Amino acid sequence: MELILQKYSQSQIEKARKIKAFVFDVDGVLTDGGIIYTNSGDELKAFNVKDGQIIKHLKQAGIIVGAITGRKSELVARRCEELKLDFFHQGIKNKFEVYSEILSEYQLTDDQVAYIGDDIIDLKLVDRAGLGIVPADGLEYVQQKADLVSTKAGGQGVIREAADFILSAQGLLEGIVKEYLA
Amino acid sequence: MELILQKYSQSQIEKARKIKAFVFDVDGVLTDGGIIYTNSGDELKAFNVKDGQIIKHLKQAGIIVGAITGRKSELVARRCEELKLDFFHQGIKNKFEVYSEILSEYQLTDDQVAYIGDDIIDLKLVDRAGLGIVPADGLEYVQQKADLVSTKAGGQGVIREAADFILSAQGLLEGIVKEYLA
Amino acid sequence: MELILQKYSQSQIEKARKIKAFVFDVDGVLTDGGIIYTNSGDELKAFNVKDGQIIKHLKQAGIIVGAITGRKSELVARRCEELKLDFFHQGIKNKFEVYSEILSEYQLTDDQVAYIGDDIIDLKLVDRAGLGIVPADGLEYVQQKADLVSTKAGGQGVIREAADFILSAQGLLEGIVKEYLA
Amino acid sequence: MELILQKYSQSQIEKARKIKAFVFDVDGVLTDGGIIYTNSGDELKAFNVKDGQIIKHLKQAGIIVGAITGRKSELVARRCEELKLDFFHQGIKNKFEVYSEILSEYQLTDDQVAYIGDDIIDLKLVDRAGLGIVPADGLEYVQQKADLVSTKAGGQGVIREAADFILSAQGLLEGIVKEYLA
Repeated sequence: MELILQKYSQSQIEKARKIKAFVFDVDGVLTDGGIIYTNSGDELKAFNVKDGQIIKHLKQAGIIVGAITGRKSELVARRCEELKLDFFHQGIKNKFEVYSEILSEYQLTDDQVAYIGDDIIDLKLVDRAGLGIVPADGLEYVQQKADLVSTKAGGQGVIREAADFILSAQGLLEGIVKEYLA
Repeated sequence: MELILQKYSQSQIEKARKIKAFVFDVDGVLTDGGIIYTNSGDELKAFNVKDGQIIKHLKQAGIIVGAITGRKSELVARRCEELKLDFFHQGIKNKFEVYSEILSEYQLTDDQVAYIGDDIIDLKLVDRAGLGIVPADGLEYVQQKADLVSTKAGGQGVIREAADFILSAQGLLEGIVKEYLA
Repeated sequence: MELILQKYSQSQIEKARKIKAFVFDVDGVLTDGGIIYTNSGDELKAFNVKDGQIIKHLKQAGIIVGAITGRKSELVARRCEELKLDFFHQGIKNKFEVYSEILSEYQLTDDQVAYIGDDIIDLKLVDRAGLGIVPADGLEYVQQKADLVSTKAGGQGVIREAADFILSAQGLLEGIVKEYLA
Repeated sequence: MELILQKYSQSQIEKARKIKAFVFDVDGVLTDGGIIYTNSGDELKAFNVKDGQIIKHLKQAGIIVGAITGRKSELVARRCEELKLDFFHQGIKNKFEVYSEILSEYQLTDDQVAYIGDDIIDLKLVDRAGLGIVPADGLEYVQQKADLVSTKAGGQGVIREAADFILSAQGLLEGIVKEYLA
């Protein structure tokens, strides 16, 4: 697991150590930003199985996990339910308002929150959160406000990459891997 | 935002400053060119959430936004309705005819129009429009007629890239970003 | 259009000049090889709009255009109908048999046929056809039998690339482009 | 076919020679890890036609072929049925248990099994199997336990690449190719 941490700066690792909540945007983060429409009126989105595999380990580590998205759809609600998130807010126009309520509800400070977002409506949360993360294919002027730009693009495992990093920084990933090998 | 403009030539920036209408093709621009069919007779296309986020800002800047496409489908009409375009013309065999009508209706000259297209039926509009843009994966002999070849491919945010550039050139993007950070 | 021909060898150009029939495989050529299944029992495949745009020009040039595929599905039949192919054979176990019948029916010799295929069951046709083409992501041991390996992968416009090359080699593409600009 | 073997080490080739069972994970191996949901409650996954083409040749070579997956869906069952696998186990929480049963049922030793997996729940099987293979886009800490990291990503033909290698190492691929050329 030391290999994982070698890719990060000391400042990034210190920020990751403090994280108690892991919050993310959906379109462009949990997905590649693709919104698929059908002629018959249906809508589809593609998620990545790798993202799902790590969420239970974040939760076992006592980290609160949740999503905030500006759009609204049944399919995203279904995926988030399957991921057993601690919270899921959709159709949110003012993400910062929801973010502030979450900090208040769970009695967290900014530096205890990791937030992953890719676009202009995520700017303030990426800026405020202790560990603001933007996917490799996120907007450049959002990346400029980030503590960390991931190597993976949205929908390609950016949540997994961020979670693996945080669990490593907190000294937990090695134990998880050993359990799977036992 | 200065970073964005550094990637463009002075001539491209001057062309972008004059833009009052932002017009684009659908297949290969708003999408990656993929046409998905099902055995049961349905059709699907994938759009990109990043493209949608910027259109309201173009409109707030007084720029007319619309699409012209040679194909015809309910799903594209639905996406374009969601994007709140000023106009949307589908099933168009002669795009230049429609383009000329738009110029006449909105009393625009060629140099006030940005047009994004990727294929042979877009050639004349890319050539005529003041700012003719072709996606990174557009046909090479269409790119040769362009004022600008984007770094993003169709469906990967080429509309966002072009819109961010035009808003930057017109001195508006910095203000938009500051509002989201406030 | 000279730019297009610069990418090809003299031997490839001479082969392309003789082509009177343009024949291709479906999965991995007209598509990226993806076979999408749904829980409800449906099947989907993604085609590329760029491939479709050129077929009418091949036909106008007097070139016979058709597809031969080992699999069978309504959705592929629908796409091929839309493309107005001269022939479409699906569910074919022995592609060489069908290929031979086509040569006989249209009174063609091997060197008048371009064939695009990506896999082991295309080997003999790639080997026999005057211009055997394999996509950039086709099997390496099929590429070894090809006269030409395209720069585009299956479903990313390999048919368009091949068709543009043949039309260029036959001195026709420049006229087509000029018509669209007129 | 010698070209294929040149890409592998002598140790990898020796391991491949012993293989009598070819076992793989589904999500991230047979697919690119994408889980597509629809608003209407359906689920989709994309498979690759290239993977399917080689399985009959593995079976003709007397190699047992099967899949073990942690998730459960009708669409994966349908694809695996189409591939005519010798076994298919889905909804498996403890993959090692199933792996052990397979070894016992077919009277195989670890070094006679090739296993392809990409994630943490595949770790033990990748570690134990004589030829543990991880796709190019598999988790790095799973790749560290692999005998072989493929050049293809999940869903892009990793099963084909692995099967072609094993058939080559066992001296069988050249004959297969010759048959298709005959």
